[in-house]
Amino acid sequence: MDFSALLTSAGINIGFCALFLSLYSVLRKQPHNFSVYFGRRLAEEKFRQQVDYFSFERLLPTAGWIVKAYWCTEEEIRRVAGLDSVVFLRLFIFSIRIFSITSLVCIFGVLPVNYHGKEKAHAHIPAESLNVFTIANIREGSRMLWVHCVALYVITVSACILLYYEYKYISRKRLAHITGSSPSPAHFSVLVRSIPKSDNELLDDTIRNFFVNYHGSSYLSHQMIYRKGNMQKFVDNAERAYRKFVRVKLSAFGQSRRSNMSRCGLCGVRASSFQLYRNKFIDSKKSDLSDPDVIEAQKDCPGAIVFFKTRYAAIVASKILPSSNPMLWVTDLAPEPRDVYWSNLWIPYRQIWLRKLAVLAASVAFMFVFIVPVAFVQSMMQVDQLQQMLPCLRGVLKKSIFVRVITGYLPSVVLLLSQYTVPPLMMFFSSIEGSISRSSRKRSACCKVLFFTIWNVFFVNVLSGSVINQLNVLTKPKDMPSMLAELVPKQATFFITYVLTSGWASLCSEILQVYNLIYNFFRKCVCCYWDEPEYVYSFPYHYVVPKVLLFNLLGFTFSILAPLILPFLLVYFCLGYLVYRNQILNVYYPKYEMGGKLWPIMHNGLVFALVLTQIIALGVFTIKHSPVATGFTILLLIGTILFNEYCRHRFSSIFDSFSAQDLIELDRDDEQSGRMEEIHQHLLDAYSQASNINGSKSSKNGEGPIEMVLDDPAQEASDSNQELIDTVKEVTGAIQEHAIQEHVEEK
Amino acid sequence: MDFSALLTSAGINIGFCALFLSLYSVLRKQPHNFSVYFGRRLAEEKFRQQVDYFSFERLLPTAGWIVKAYWCTEEEIRRVAGLDSVVFLRLFIFSIRIFSITSLVCIFGVLPVNYHGKEKAHAHIPAESLNVFTIANIREGSRMLWVHCVALYVITVSACILLYYEYKYISRKRLAHITGSSPSPAHFSVLVRSIPKSDNELLDDTIRNFFVNYHGSSYLSHQMIYRKGNMQKFVDNAERAYRKFVRVKLSAFGQSRRSNMSRCGLCGVRASSFQLYRNKFIDSKKSDLSDPDVIEAQKDCPGAIVFFKTRYAAIVASKILPSSNPMLWVTDLAPEPRDVYWSNLWIPYRQIWLRKLAVLAASVAFMFVFIVPVAFVQSMMQVDQLQQMLPCLRGVLKKSIFVRVITGYLPSVVLLLSQYTVPPLMMFFSSIEGSISRSSRKRSACCKVLFFTIWNVFFVNVLSGSVINQLNVLTKPKDMPSMLAELVPKQATFFITYVLTSGWASLCSEILQVYNLIYNFFRKCVCCYWDEPEYVYSFPYHYVVPKVLLFNLLGFTFSILAPLILPFLLVYFCLGYLVYRNQILNVYYPKYEMGGKLWPIMHNGLVFALVLTQIIALGVFTIKHSPVATGFTILLLIGTILFNEYCRHRFSSIFDSFSAQDLIELDRDDEQSGRMEEIHQHLLDAYSQASNINGSKSSKNGEGPIEMVLDDPAQEASDSNQELIDTVKEVTGAIQEHAIQEHVEEK
Repeated sequence: MDFSALLTSAGINIGFCALFLSLYSVLRKQPHNFSVYFGRRLAEEKFRQQVDYFSFERLLPTAGWIVKAYWCTEEEIRRVAGLDSVVFLRLFIFSIRIFSITSLVCIFGVLPVNYHGKEKAHAHIPAESLNVFTIANIREGSRMLWVHCVALYVITVSACILLYYEYKYISRKRLAHITGSSPSPAHFSVLVRSIPKSDNELLDDTIRNFFVNYHGSSYLSHQMIYRKGNMQKFVDNAERAYRKFVRVKLSAFGQSRRSNMSRCGLCGVRASSFQLYRNKFIDSKKSDLSDPDVIEAQKDCPGAIVFFKTRYAAIVASKILPSSNPMLWVTDLAPEPRDVYWSNLWIPYRQIWLRKLAVLAASVAFMFVFIVPVAFVQSMMQVDQLQQMLPCLRGVLKKSIFVRVITGYLPSVVLLLSQYTVPPLMMFFSSIEGSISRSSRKRSACCKVLFFTIWNVFFVNVLSGSVINQLNVLTKPKDMPSMLAELVPKQATFFITYVLTSGWASLCSEILQVYNLIYNFFRKCVCCYWDEPEYVYSFPYHYVVPKVLLFNLLGFTFSILAPLILPFLLVYFCLGYLVYRNQILNVYYPKYEMGGKLWPIMHNGLVFALVLTQIIALGVFTIKHSPVATGFTILLLIGTILFNEYCRHRFSSIFDSFSAQDLIELDRDDEQSGRMEEIHQHLLDAYSQASNINGSKSSKNGEGPIEMVLDDPAQEASDSNQELIDTVKEVTGAIQEHAIQEHVEEK
Repeated sequence: MDFSALLTSAGINIGFCALFLSLYSVLRKQPHNFSVYFGRRLAEEKFRQQVDYFSFERLLPTAGWIVKAYWCTEEEIRRVAGLDSVVFLRLFIFSIRIFSITSLVCIFGVLPVNYHGKEKAHAHIPAESLNVFTIANIREGSRMLWVHCVALYVITVSACILLYYEYKYISRKRLAHITGSSPSPAHFSVLVRSIPKSDNELLDDTIRNFFVNYHGSSYLSHQMIYRKGNMQKFVDNAERAYRKFVRVKLSAFGQSRRSNMSRCGLCGVRASSFQLYRNKFIDSKKSDLSDPDVIEAQKDCPGAIVFFKTRYAAIVASKILPSSNPMLWVTDLAPEPRDVYWSNLWIPYRQIWLRKLAVLAASVAFMFVFIVPVAFVQSMMQVDQLQQMLPCLRGVLKKSIFVRVITGYLPSVVLLLSQYTVPPLMMFFSSIEGSISRSSRKRSACCKVLFFTIWNVFFVNVLSGSVINQLNVLTKPKDMPSMLAELVPKQATFFITYVLTSGWASLCSEILQVYNLIYNFFRKCVCCYWDEPEYVYSFPYHYVVPKVLLFNLLGFTFSILAPLILPFLLVYFCLGYLVYRNQILNVYYPKYEMGGKLWPIMHNGLVFALVLTQIIALGVFTIKHSPVATGFTILLLIGTILFNEYCRHRFSSIFDSFSAQDLIELDRDDEQSGRMEEIHQHLLDAYSQASNINGSKSSKNGEGPIEMVLDDPAQEASDSNQELIDTVKEVTGAIQEHAIQEHVEEK
């Protein structure tokens, strides 16, 4: 590929991007696409009031959304989309900053050196092969390698400084988030699992006695979690039928549907008969220990949520080993109510370590098994081999168009396949692992996808040609740097086009929401369901974050090897920043808050990218016989590892836990302002799953423990149903809050 | 080497052992050796009353000590030597049990199979080469390999069962130790480091304000730790001179010396003038912030010990992140007063992570650098090479006696060298690491020595011949099993003789205490110092534990490869059990208590040995073309790893921390019995280093914080002095306790 071809390709891609963005700016103005492009806003009911008039302006592409996305402040984003979105956008800010510096250094410093690396007659630049711009053009033993070494130093040092300040900034944001947000029931609650069962005591009493005994002054109440018995399944089915009926009826109501439903269908008045039934059922269970039903129910209780009077007491109870058997009375800080992953709570605690190991093994196995299709496709790319394997295809393969399709598109298809199949699979793995919260499941999936992406996109493509043969590199870690140094520059062209196509295209597809757009079109125009779909998506961190980190990795590793990739990456990051800002503001609805816990993952990913860059540079300097540069790079490598260690010591605890100081201050504030009573009241039904389903105003008795019933794992289907209802309820809550806020503001 | 030669060698070694043990039984009866053989008992003053009469019986070897060592109960050992000794002896019990089973299985199952592995005419057994008894004698593809596989299963399964019960037993013992022992000041105290300095507040006030603010209900008091200023060095020198004077005077008192010294020299009455001086000095420091001395003193304060009213409050304060900056207000549970490693407390906390990394790097580097002498010596063993290297030696080398010395003894010399130089060096590394307690320093050194021993004794000898060439194995982890499988059986003879010589001989040298015996002889007979030396040794876990674990590793790895090693090992373990019981009862004095925390290290070492055995077996089965056995071994390997994970989850937290349940129960007991007041009183001067030196009855004012002054790191010399005094003081305490106990019993 020569330089002009690259420019042409870039030009075409820029054209396509401009086209798609204009298309987006038109499509977003069409009212029937509001559910696709304004999911979050719809959920907050701001667009309801707009009248559906037609104007010519609706068909003109505009750049207003870019301006809106750009001028929105960070604080505003935090308020509407949570801290995680802010953290995610900080990743883009970091990337833009570091790659501005890197581009500056590498385009003006390294690129000319590479270009003039070998003394030969240069052609006119546009006709020059891309290899002339890579480090492969430097001859062995060249004295100009110091430029690369200095560039590496500049990049690493500025990346470390920026990373340090980002970590500091985000940890300050996290602390402000903890102290500044409204009291969360999660801070007062501890999830207790693996409760020892006794034959002559009700489980309920066991829990109360234990906590009254050892945390007497701070224990408030507790709720037990039960799996559904047969009786309850019947009740639930009836409930589900009822809810369906309510929904059908409501769909006729049109505009006032949502608030109406939230009041009568979800908040309990009409569902009181079921509640009564359930209460009766629960009462009967409590009668005595001779009843086999009670014993059965005891067996089915996987744990309880225990409430404490203060945040500090809750964290103390969760951090200190409760009993001398670490497998009993396992305490964790409870996730937020909307964040609890109910169907995982039934997993016996003693299985969890085994599940984690099994999932680890399965993920690693999957990572390596995925090489098989990659290798197969790459063997197809070598047309000669294919002809040998399948002689019948010889005729077809002679036609150059087929060859082009096979060699040009199949690798991209495999990469795309991985992009679409892997995240759900890793999410499934993370569910099996036994995470108690949706957020930890997503974080775990994010890590898995990250490993997978780096391995299968970066390494497998670098070691391409004959992947299986190159796998031997794993068994010879010593040869790794020089092998990488030899192979990476060769793949520069592939990765530049990868950034152009996969990177830019993914942003266009992200902003156009192609899948949802088509689904919406068919739903409305073909199937004639004119009501808005109720499901709002939450931000897919688990596959967007690894993708952005992969582009960072590409940027760092190719920075001194093939600096031509940098401008394209910089465009990707700038465009991505705007696009994701827009999506966060308009499309995705945050269902739970991770409190910025994604940053340590991103930080580690970025440091890994730096270290990999240095290892490859080590290999390059060794191959090019530059011992001085090698020595300095080793120093830099050690420095980077030390920097990472320091950051881990300085910041990581902040993301793992809360500090006593903050929690005690918060508790004091609440006590002094007299809000504590109210918080305690709210606490008692925050986690009641029953109240989530049919609104248990009646269960607010405030003294006795409230029973929670959770779905059988087999009934995963109802889980998504649950998610839907949760969302609607949150939305209702948000509306009510909004209304109250407005009310207050009016006053 | 043939079988008869092995038997001869064993016979000679048994003869030597018998001789040394008899010698010991005679030497121990000589009164002037009491200080060598009864250090612990002397420290407890039981031997004082014996009259020094001569009898003929004193010259007769007897086995009484064996009987005494054997019949002593575990509870008795725990009482006199602490839980750690019990845990250490449990390692021997485990080894005896597992190697009894292994010997049974391998001698009667595997050995005949190995012997008849190849169809050939066998010579008379004594003339048979030892190789005939190893797995090398089995032909490839033999169907008899299932015997080895079954034996491996029996060994692994019984080892896992035994390990599980040992872990359970020891964790029960640990819990009983925590709940059963007398109240320790360590449970009430938290060591705070990295206290933020403010310009307008005294550090003392900063600490008090912080803890009163956040732990108001449970905070009792605190003591600050200061480094010595010049003034104090002067005071200390005066003190040291005074103490020397007191000791000289006391040495004339003869029998009543020790108790006398403890009363007047160490417990403060006569030293009151110094105390007063110091108090004055401290008072002057507290005056105001404008005084440069005060500011200087503030700078020199590395931390403080904070006392809490209950054990539970202390553990809460130590486990919960105190402030939102994890590098400030770093809290740890304080070590026991006698366990605090004072000279490490001055290390700024922010250096510690760096020191740990540096020490890790240094240890690994040392491990590999140590290969150089080994390789050098091994190159000397190949006499031909040596002749080439140093042609001038050709004449000498022709004489076979020199050749024998060089080839026979030099490897042992190198191993011995490592045995004597490495433990102190690793101990030094662990000191640099910044451990705050002596016990954690010893545990850390123990781990380092363990890695070193396994690497330099096992691996380097297995890969012998051309160590440097074989180092490539590290870069090809895949070939590791088959390479080990090829090399390990070849070294069977070397390791059998290693057990005979190094193992048995080390026990003889241990019980004879050769070094101390000679030192004592010279001291008394040549230099005519007739008073008993005051220093009592504490048990050198950091090099004994790795050695015993190495023998376990040898036993496991050679069990199915060369079962002939097993009887010799069994003898080692039985003898070792008796010898170390005797030494623990008589010689070593426990200076601090680790509470059984050594067991997790031992457990991991043993599991590593099992895994290594299985990996080698894997290689062997692969080489011998037995895919079924290979498959079953992989299953076993996975099972072992799962077992280890389970144990980690089930038990390891018990050894890391205390449980809320236990601590709260203890606190309640003490409160109900009214002992709490007394404990609090005792607490206030438990950690006062000043009181350790010259007994500060006067500092028991109970309100103001007590200042602690610790040595400059440069003054390491005085450290050992300090150790001596600590010991003497503990002994006095023990005597007083004993006296009180007797008094109570009499009543």
